Order: sequence, then structure tokens, then C-alpha cells
Amino acid sequence: MGTVMMEQMSWSVYRDKIIRDNPALFLPCGALEQHGPHLPLGTDALLASAVAASAASRVDGIVAPALSYGYKSQPKCGGGQHFCGTTSLDAHTLISQARDAVREFARHGVKKLVVLNGHYENQWFLIEGIDLALRELGPNHPLRVMRLEYWDFMTEATLAAVFPAGFPGFALEHAAVIETSIMLHYHPDLVRLDLIPDNGPADFPPYEIHPLNPAWVPASGVLSSARGADAEKGRQMAGEVAQRIADAVRAEFA
Amino acid sequence: MGTVMMEQMSWSVYRDKIIRDNPALFLPCGALEQHGPHLPLGTDALLASAVAASAASRVDGIVAPALSYGYKSQPKCGGGQHFCGTTSLDAHTLISQARDAVREFARHGVKKLVVLNGHYENQWFLIEGIDLALRELGPNHPLRVMRLEYWDFMTEATLAAVFPAGFPGFALEHAAVIETSIMLHYHPDLVRLDLIPDNGPADFPPYEIHPLNPAWVPASGVLSSARGADAEKGRQMAGEVAQRIADAVRAEFA
Amino acid sequence: MGTVMMEQMSWSVYRDKIIRDNPALFLPCGALEQHGPHLPLGTDALLASAVAASAASRVDGIVAPALSYGYKSQPKCGGGQHFCGTTSLDAHTLISQARDAVREFARHGVKKLVVLNGHYENQWFLIEGIDLALRELGPNHPLRVMRLEYWDFMTEATLAAVFPAGFPGFALEHAAVIETSIMLHYHPDLVRLDLIPDNGPADFPPYEIHPLNPAWVPASGVLSSARGADAEKGRQMAGEVAQRIADAVRAEFA
Amino acid sequence: MGTVMMEQMSWSVYRDKIIRDNPALFLPCGALEQHGPHLPLGTDALLASAVAASAASRVDGIVAPALSYGYKSQPKCGGGQHFCGTTSLDAHTLISQARDAVREFARHGVKKLVVLNGHYENQWFLIEGIDLALRELGPNHPLRVMRLEYWDFMTEATLAAVFPAGFPGFALEHAAVIETSIMLHYHPDLVRLDLIPDNGPADFPPYEIHPLNPAWVPASGVLSSARGADAEKGRQMAGEVAQRIADAVRAEFA
Amino acid sequence: MGTVMMEQMSWSVYRDKIIRDNPALFLPCGALEQHGPHLPLGTDALLASAVAASAASRVDGIVAPALSYGYKSQPKCGGGQHFCGTTSLDAHTLISQARDAVREFARHGVKKLVVLNGHYENQWFLIEGIDLALRELGPNHPLRVMRLEYWDFMTEATLAAVFPAGFPGFALEHAAVIETSIMLHYHPDLVRLDLIPDNGPADFPPYEIHPLNPAWVPASGVLSSARGADAEKGRQMAGEVAQRIADAVRAEFA
Amino acid sequence: MGTVMMEQMSWSVYRDKIIRDNPALFLPCGALEQHGPHLPLGTDALLASAVAASAASRVDGIVAPALSYGYKSQPKCGGGQHFCGTTSLDAHTLISQARDAVREFARHGVKKLVVLNGHYENQWFLIEGIDLALRELGPNHPLRVMRLEYWDFMTEATLAAVFPAGFPGFALEHAAVIETSIMLHYHPDLVRLDLIPDNGPADFPPYEIHPLNPAWVPASGVLSSARGADAEKGRQMAGEVAQRIADAVRAEFA
Repeated sequence: MGTVMMEQMSWSVYRDKIIRDNPALFLPCGALEQHGPHLPLGTDALLASAVAASAASRVDGIVAPALSYGYKSQPKCGGGQHFCGTTSLDAHTLISQARDAVREFARHGVKKLVVLNGHYENQWFLIEGIDLALRELGPNHPLRVMRLEYWDFMTEATLAAVFPAGFPGFALEHAAVIETSIMLHYHPDLVRLDLIPDNGPADFPPYEIHPLNPAWVPASGVLSSARGADAEKGRQMAGEVAQRIADAVRAEFA
Repeated sequence: MGTVMMEQMSWSVYRDKIIRDNPALFLPCGALEQHGPHLPLGTDALLASAVAASAASRVDGIVAPALSYGYKSQPKCGGGQHFCGTTSLDAHTLISQARDAVREFARHGVKKLVVLNGHYENQWFLIEGIDLALRELGPNHPLRVMRLEYWDFMTEATLAAVFPAGFPGFALEHAAVIETSIMLHYHPDLVRLDLIPDNGPADFPPYEIHPLNPAWVPASGVLSSARGADAEKGRQMAGEVAQRIADAVRAEFA
Repeated sequence: MGTVMMEQMSWSVYRDKIIRDNPALFLPCGALEQHGPHLPLGTDALLASAVAASAASRVDGIVAPALSYGYKSQPKCGGGQHFCGTTSLDAHTLISQARDAVREFARHGVKKLVVLNGHYENQWFLIEGIDLALRELGPNHPLRVMRLEYWDFMTEATLAAVFPAGFPGFALEHAAVIETSIMLHYHPDLVRLDLIPDNGPADFPPYEIHPLNPAWVPASGVLSSARGADAEKGRQMAGEVAQRIADAVRAEFA
Repeated sequence: MGTVMMEQMSWSVYRDKIIRDNPALFLPCGALEQHGPHLPLGTDALLASAVAASAASRVDGIVAPALSYGYKSQPKCGGGQHFCGTTSLDAHTLISQARDAVREFARHGVKKLVVLNGHYENQWFLIEGIDLALRELGPNHPLRVMRLEYWDFMTEATLAAVFPAGFPGFALEHAAVIETSIMLHYHPDLVRLDLIPDNGPADFPPYEIHPLNPAWVPASGVLSSARGADAEKGRQMAGEVAQRIADAVRAEFA
Repeated sequence: MGTVMMEQMSWSVYRDKIIRDNPALFLPCGALEQHGPHLPLGTDALLASAVAASAASRVDGIVAPALSYGYKSQPKCGGGQHFCGTTSLDAHTLISQARDAVREFARHGVKKLVVLNGHYENQWFLIEGIDLALRELGPNHPLRVMRLEYWDFMTEATLAAVFPAGFPGFALEHAAVIETSIMLHYHPDLVRLDLIPDNGPADFPPYEIHPLNPAWVPASGVLSSARGADAEKGRQMAGEVAQRIADAVRAEFA
Repeated sequence: MGTVMMEQMSWSVYRDKIIRDNPALFLPCGALEQHGPHLPLGTDALLASAVAASAASRVDGIVAPALSYGYKSQPKCGGGQHFCGTTSLDAHTLISQARDAVREFARHGVKKLVVLNGHYENQWFLIEGIDLALRELGPNHPLRVMRLEYWDFMTEATLAAVFPAGFPGFALEHAAVIETSIMLHYHPDLVRLDLIPDNGPADFPPYEIHPLNPAWVPASGVLSSARGADAEKGRQMAGEVAQRIADAVRAEFA
């Protein structure tokens, strides 16, 4: 069984690997969240898992089951909580989920943990969950945790190639060119190119209003157009990101 | 896209289905837990998801992403928390996860929710999570929740057929004949028949000791032998369970 | 003062006993829950306390005040939360109560703790409370905790004698023959034999529905008839249970 | 069964009484806490329950099972947490216990609840528990809650009679004349007059130090001498308190 | 920068002081709570901060930013939660705030912490917060915490001078002579002497009712008259309190 | 009393204003966090309060007391938790603090709330606190909440003027040109220009490591140089931000 997926390994295979190889363990963090009419609700977990598997395969690592539910979607980065299908956690739940996972991996003997996030809204709650677990483990525990958003590993060169008219910034890249392209690379059967909406980029003021104003968000849930997405771009971005994450893991955890 | 898996649907497909069909939504609840040397760590989530998909396909339902992490493994039903690879949640985390999911499905307009559990230790925390969500929703909310352990839908006739020497009870059926057979049916490539251990059934006193005594539990993690498992038994059990769950869903939510 | 009841001891008597004898400390866990028209609301706490006192007297142990309130009553084992008089705790409250008690007993120097449960619904929350306390105490603390449901100490021989027509299983034994008999033994003045209802055993499907359907549960709150209960049966069952718990305590904590 | 004790009533008797009489329900709140070498650890719960029963019998009320465990003992009012035998709850646990109880009594239809406290340290956590429950019940719920420390119902005349040399204040009345006298009235068999220590009153500075300094507290745990306690004083104080609480209940809940 | 206010120091100045001087750090705890028509909502935080600064300046201490929000106002000591402007915290929030602050000061190397409370209702939640932090720090940590209500440092002589007609007790001293006088000393521009209400002292029964009865509390929010307040009395009281707190700090933390 | 500061208003002045004017209420959110050797620990709370007061004065609003403690400092935006003096809250504490404040302001009748954040790390926990409060208030409550980081209101023109060599991005603007300039405008006496460190901008990889690696962060705590800061730049930035926030408040809450 050459799998990198922990859920597909027996406990004895996993244990032997931990003891023998001191491998990096990847915890993909996703969401169940609207991604427009052309991408599935599970996009964030699917992409985080796929990128993690790709990076893990380069460093002989292991990928734990993804956190499939994430923090509440916000209008400016995920469209907002008014969309049907978006299924989110309270902060305390996500923090606790991350803390418990880190605590358990530490018990297993994992020393290199990579918390690989694919849902922007998760970021700070993952930080807190990791921090609470490390506090519990005490100052002398050998576990070290790398935490990252996978898209931050794209180079400017790649972004320039993918966005010949200029990169509009990650803020509006929800269900847009990057995610659609990488989904076309990893899960082409889950993408409905024919349903990509045409709405121009959303335009937000420099503040939020709670409760959210649905009028701020395109009805499709897409914050800027996914036109221009293709599988080849996805392959390039995914490959670069996985490779550069693998490089970082090797360098940091040497 | 004829999938029943929510994570593979776009939000608009999901929404249309909720509005048009008032479908039953299945939430599979699993664990990441040792299942002997012959079954993968993800067995409980894999089986709960597979059974849910099978039942959902019979009632035109939808299957949400599984809760992949479950409550702490206990010696008498899952081997205990001392196994490497078993990755568990605190009670409060699992309760909160269930509560948040129910709250969100209710917001979507789901009226028929089936919380389908595949990890014995999860049971009471799922009950509490559902109860907290229903309290929040108030006494007049239309959501109704069916909660079940899937193995309780096997008939005595089937158990008699599967266990010609007499059914030893669900208590020891951890990584044993039932789970191994159903895995052989749904995920034959994840079963290592050649590694099934030979240890006889575990014998527990009528109490627990905390911290656990690892000597109580076979070193393999298997509580009674999986010898006798085969894919055909798995097919029969899985089919019966899925059909009877589907029948119950139709009858209760008519 | 030859009492085994901690609440009746002065702190200095208790402290001397802890230091001198290293005694087993019993924590009875009950509930305030309907038990039909013939048994009092406090049945579970009364029985857990009485059994604990009987076992404690055999091993020179001490009995702490019972947890008088328990987890929410479920239809299949306690009738459900719709009964007036049933007064229950949220999971988090009961978990915290158990955790705090264990933490404090450990501070006293108790090394042998017996958490003796008399309310089925409490089980998993007591497990979590104990686990959280032990985590806090750290891996090298000398405290060991035995946790049990007292009825699990009845032998098959006794059950066969008490139920000549066959034991229907503990599941329906709520306010039925076992509890009524043991109450007739310990607290005959609190039993109204003349009010025992006649309803046949409840019949439940292999799932739950939330919010509960009161029609599933006999209006009396009794899940199978208490006809056939008598004090002599109670004496035999209580005696056997107390003796066998005492034996287990001696053996485990030797 | 003329009992006022809820735990001794069947659910149907309780329900009938609630519906028919709209009675006041008393919740006694105690502790398991050192009370010197002459009083038992359960003094606070025993006294709160006894006073509650006495008051309840005067207004045809009902007494729920006492909260037997209370908030952490403080040096200036209960001696402190360093005493063996003192078994206390975290604030959050006690708050949750009170909140859950109030929520459940409200569900029963109770409209007159008396939270009768016998452990000084509980006060503010009971306030919070009640407040959280009332917030949950909403602004229009008919439940009203009276909360009190029973000793505040002694008149100055009685205090003058009990303390001919002048009342030193409730602050130091831990395991001293008042509690010892009332225990002699209600539970004479649990008092060891021969073991009353002689230490003069404790003298505390106008601040606290954490962690506590055990040297501040008499080794006996008694904050001022119980010399002068007798059953007759106990009878007078208990009778006055019960009567005046009953009067207040009648007046407030008319 | 000779300031004692931590918020006005750079981190390096603060660090050097901690390392070099092992100073006492004061944490003032206030509230945002009605204080009649003549005192500002921030009175408790303003006074706690001012007293802390005055005491700190005498012992070369440091004053951390005040907790500006406190526990819920109660009718008998703060008027109650029905006043507009009173802005309060749940118990758990205040407990957590205190716990986190103590944990952080301990990390800085602070060994002498003075939690100086100016809002009566905060008391028990500060105790719990300190206790939880100390539990986390473990039994051998060098941090010691003094906790106090500042008014407890007034001598009887001073109270006799301030209240020539007899001191009515701190219970009714909400927005009355003491607080008004000390505000006139520290913040005369925030006092509206012309708006002091005339209502006589509030008269409370020996119990509470929840939800509160607003009729119990003077409409002004003042529990006894502030007539008689003047800046000179404030100067004397403030000076005495600050000096005696400084003395206690020196003596205890020598 | 023409103040906009709520803590300086009497409750009756505040109440009258709320009823009469339906004003915007500003809640400044800061931190106690290292800001290099030249800025005080309280910088974030001081700036948030000052900006809030300036904006409030333009819309006849009110400013509540700042949250003086914030979420844990992160290396890439605040230097990290290893600095002495940085005094931070757990996520749950900050969330609860924000939730409680919003709940209370809603009780007062506030309909326009502006949560004005001055500490980057607070952002997501404020979002959660607001969300939890709004959930409690229910879907029909008239309260609306604007949430913002004040620096997001600077125009590109202003940034271009302040950073003639190009704006390096907000990420490194910790204790750098923007904060130093605005402090020079509002609190010149708290700035030590002579102590501005010279270290070049910090350079971070596209991931985090936990526990943090202090070597990533300049020893001064300053992430990019504050050279170039002056009071005039501060005046321009502060004025623009306050004016544009005021404009947004007027427009959104019209």
C-alpha cells in the first residue's frame, strides 16, 4: 500500500512509518462552502487534500484526513454565510478540532506537522488551536508545526503567467481562476466549465457590515470571474505550490 | 452530476434539490482509529460514508462529508487510546461539531437529517450535539433528526447467517467479521486479509480502569477474530442495512 | 462514628483514614429522573449510593456524596426528557462535575477511586470527566479510577433466577423489576407497589428521533413491567452486586 | 407520602403538585468542605437542605436535591482549599449546574424557585447560573427566582441573644457558634462537641494572597470558636430563619 | 518617562524594570456601570486605576491597563443591569480575562502581582481567574498575587471622620459619599455636584429576586446619598488607601 | 460635558443621547503589545481610541472604553509572543469580550455600532464575537455593526505621499512609519524618536512555524524602519482615516 493517505493505512503501517522515518504529517484544512455554480461545495477540502498529497509524496510524508468543515464564510473572501450549502463551524469548534488533532499527532510521536490550509477564513482559528495544543504539550516538546495557506507558495512569475492582465490579488480569488484551474487539474469531473458565471469582480468597501448585506456579493457566489481558468494553468500552479511546500518542509524540518 | 455526495455538488445544485425535493440529508460520523493490521485507520468514516451513500441513493438523499475524527477509543469497543494512529476528539469538540453541523443544515432548509454513526464511542456526544442544536432552533422548528448506529439495522437472520457458530455480540465486533466483511464489499483494496490476526476474543471485566491497562487489549487491536469475513457477507450485510435504513427514513419522514 | 459516608465525617477523620488506610473512595452517580408512578425521582442516586455504601463497608471504603443530577434522560433507557420531574444536566456540566471531583480527590491523596454509576445516560460523560482529570494530573500520578455501572455485576445465574421467563435485557429495565426490587430492599418506604403500571414492554425501532416522539414511550414512564419485583430479589441482587464490586476493588487495587 | 423532598416523590406526584398548587421549589446549595474536627464535611449541604425542608413545610413547598459540591473554599470564609476533604468545583461547573437546574425546573412549570445557599463561596456563581438560565428562558417567562443565604434571615435580636458578648460578624462564622448550634438542632449525632477546638478567632488582613498562605488559617479549620454553641440556640436560629424565609416566599410570590 | 503606567512604557523599558527591580505590577479592575447622574460610567475603572497609580508610585511599581468592563451590576451593590449605560461581562468572560492577564504577567517574569478591584461585583470572578492561572502555572511558580478591594484599606478612624453620623456600610456606598469624594479628588472635572440626587438610602430585603425588580432601586441609580462628599475627604481616603496598600505590598512581597 | 468618551459620561447623559440621537457607538479594540523601543505598549489601544474619538466627533457619536488587551501577537504582524510586555488574550476570551459588549450595547438601544480595530491579530475574533452576539439577538434585531481596521481607510494617494519610495504593505507596518507618525500626531510625548531602531524590513517565508522562531523577528520588535515618520504625516493620515470612517458611518447608517 504505497498510499500517503493516513485514513487508508493500517495503524501498524502508520506506526512503523512514524518510528522509522520521522515523516512530515500533513493536516489539510478545508471547508464546505459555496464555490459558484461551477465548482463543488467541497472545493477547499479537496484542494487542500490534493496539494497535501502532492507535497507529501515528494517528502515521503503522510496526509491525515482533511478537516472538511471550516470557519464561517465571510462576504469578502468566501461570499458569506447566506448561501445555501455553506456549512460552517463556530470559532470554538474549529479551534478545538485543531487543538485535539495536534495533541493526538504529538502522542503518536509526530515531530513534523504541516497544517495546510485551503480556506482563508480558517487561518486564525488554526493558529489558536495549534497554540493551545503547544501550551498543553509544554515548552520542551519536540513537535514543531508549519502552518500555511497553500496559495502563498505561488511565485510572482507564475501569477504573472496565469494573469496576463495583472493579478487582482488573492482577496477576490474565490471560485475564480486559481481555484477553478487547480480543480481542473485535480478533479476535472467536478468542474462545470459551462456554468462559470460572467459577473465582474466584486467591489467591497474598506469595512464589513454585520449582519451581512447580501447585495454586496454577486448572486453566483463568485467574487471575480473564473474565465481564463484551464487545466494547464492548474497543473503549473499546483505543481509549483506542492514543490515549494515540499522544499520548505525539507528545509525547516531538516 | 448524479452524485449523492454533497461535497461534489455545487451550491446551486444542492439548493435546488433542497427546495424542490425536501431530501433526507445524511451525516456520516466516523473516526480515525486503529482497526487491526488488516483494516485502515479510516474504517469507521469510510463505512459510515459508504452505508450512507447506499441508503441515500435509495431515497434520493444527499450525503454530507463525514466527520472523520471521533470520540476517544475505549478498550472494550475500540481498543483504547494507547494505539498509535488513533486520533480522537475531546467530548466538547465532537459535541460542538455535531451541533454546528445541525444548525447549518437547518439554515439550509433541511427538514430530514439522518446522523449515521459508524464509531460506537461517538453515540452520546452526537446525541448531545443534536440536542443543543435543537434547543437553539426552538420548539417549533420543522427539522427532525434520525440518529442511528448502522449495525443496529442488521436482522437476526442475517447475523445468524454471518455467524453460524453464534453471534458474539456487537461489543467485540471491532475490526472483526462485520467490519472486515463490509470493507471487503466497499473497499476491497484497503483490506489486507493476509494480516488478519489470530487472537481469540478479548475478555473484559464488568468495569473499566482509567488510565487504561493496555494488557486488557490484544496487541493487534482486534477484539475478536476477523477470520470468516468475506466480501459476500459484506455485500449482504451492507445491502440489508442500507435498505432498512432507507425504509426507516421513508417511513419516519413521510 | 463508624459511617462510610464522607459527608458525615469530619475532615480530620477523613484525612486520617486517607493517610492511614489508603481506602477506596466511591463516587455514586445518579440522576433526578422519572421512575414511573411507583418509584421516586431520586431512585438512581439512592440506589447508586446504597450499593456504594454496601460495597464500601466490605472494603473499609468511603462514599462521597452522590452526583444527584445526571445526563438527559433518553426515551429508550429512561423515558425521555418530556417527563415532568426529570431534571437533567447538559453534557458539559456533568463532564465538568466529574472532572472537578476527580481532581479534588486526587489532591486529598486518594489513589483508589470507584465511580459507581446508577444512571445509564451518565456513562460516557463520566468517562470524559475522568479522562480530562487524568490528563490534568499527568501520566505519573498514582490515582487509578475504576468506573462501572452497578448492574453489570449481576451474574447470569441471578438474572435467570430473577427473570424465570427470560431476562429481557438491561435496555428496558427502567423502573422495572431490577430497580423496583432493589428499592424494596433498600428503601421500601419509598416504593408504591400499588401503583406499578401494567404496560407491557416498550418496543423501539433501531434508531432515535430528535426531538423525541413521546408516543414511543409508555405514559407511565415504565419501559417494562415491574410486576414480579420483590424485596427478596432485591436483597439477592444488591448483595451480589455489592460483594462482586468489593471483590473487584480488592483485586484491582491490591 | 407527605414528604417535601423531591427525590422521594414519584414524578406523577410531583407533576400533580406543580400543576395543582404552583408550589415554591427550593434548591439547597451546599458544599463538601472542612468544618473543623467537630462538624462533618457535608455541613453546608445538610444545613441548607434542613432549612429548606423546614421552610418548605411551612409553605407547602418542595425541596430539590441539594447541590452537594460547592465553589472553592476561601481562607477568610471557609478555611481554604488546602484542607483534605474539602472537595470543590470550578466556577464554570457550579454556574453550569445552577443554570441547568433552573432551566429544567422552568420546563416542569415551576414558577416560584428559591435558591437557598448554605455555602458563602457559592453566592456569585449561583447568581450567574440563574442569570444565564433566565436569559435563555427569555424576558417573558413566568419563572421568578428568589436567591438567598439563609443566615441573612436572622434578626439582630436573635444574634444578640446568641452572642451575648457581641456578634463577631458572619465572616468568621465558619464551623463556629451558628453552624454548630444549628447542626446540634438538626443533626446532633453528627456533631462532636468534645472535639471543638479552642483557637481564638482568625485575624485576616484586608487583602488575599494567592496561592493561599496556610499559616493565615487555624490548623483546625475553625475560624472562630464554636464554644457557646448549643442545640437550643440552634433551634431558635433555625426556626426563625425558616419562618422568615417562608414569610418572604409567601410575600414575594403571592 | 517616569510614568508608572505600563501602557505608556515601551516594552524595553518595561522589560528592564521587571528584570532589574522585580517591581509589583498592579492590575486595576473596574466596570462600565451607572454611578448616578453625577458620576461618570467609568468611575470604577477610573478610581481603581488612580488608586493603583498612587500606590504604585509609592513602591516603584507598574500599573497595567485597567479591565474597563466588569461583572454584571447587582441591585444591592451597583443598582442592577436594567440601567442604560451599564455594560457588563458574563462571568466566564471576566474569569478568562483575569486568567489570561495573570498568565501573561507570569511569562514576563512578574513575581508580585496586585489585582486591585474597584467594582464589588468582580470579586469572585477575579478569584477564579487567578486560581485558574495559578493552577496552570503549577505549584512551584514564583508568582504571588495579592487581591483586594481598595476600600477595605480605609481605617475605622477615617470612616468615622467621613461619616460623622455613622458609617452605613460599604453595601450602599455605590455612587455615594466615598466614590464621589475620591472622584472629586482625582477627577473633579468628571463630577457634577449639582446633579447629586437626594434619594435616601435604598432598603433591601435579605434576599434577591431574579429577574430583578427595578422598583427596589432608586431611579437615580444612587443607593445612598452622596451629599456630604467633598474633595478633601476624597484626598484623605485616597491617600490612606494608597499608602496602606503600598505598605501591604512592601510587607507581603518583602 | 461635551465629551465623546462614554466612560466620562453619566449614565443619564448617555441614555438621553441614545434615545434622542440614535448615535453611532464606537468600540475601539487594541492590544498591549511591544511596539519597538520608541512606542509604548499601549499603542494599538491608544490609536484606536484616538481615531475613534476623532471619527465620533464628526458624527456626534460616542466612544466606549477600548478593549485594552488583544489577541496573541504573531511574528509576521506584531513580532510574536516572546516579547516581554506583550500581554495577550486567548481567542475565546477576546471573542467573549466582544460578544458581551455587543449584547450590552444592544440592550442599551444602540442601533449603530462601529467596532474599530487597531490590532491586526484581533480581526477574526472580533468577527466571531459580533456573530455570536447577533445570533443571540435574533434575525430581527435593529442593531447593525460596522467592523473595520482603521488603516484600510487610507487612500492610495496618501500612502504614496507618506511612502515616496513605495509603500511596503501593511504587513510590515508594525511600529513603523504609519503607527509612529500617528502617535506623533496624537501622543507626541509617548514617542521616543531617538530610540527608533535602524533594522531593515523583516523578511518572512510564506508559512509560519509554531512554536515561533524568535530569530525570524528583529530583536527590536520593529518589522520595518520607522525612519521617515513625522507628526505631519500622522496628522494627514489620522485626519483622512477619521474623516473617511465618519463618511462611511453616515452613509451606511443613514
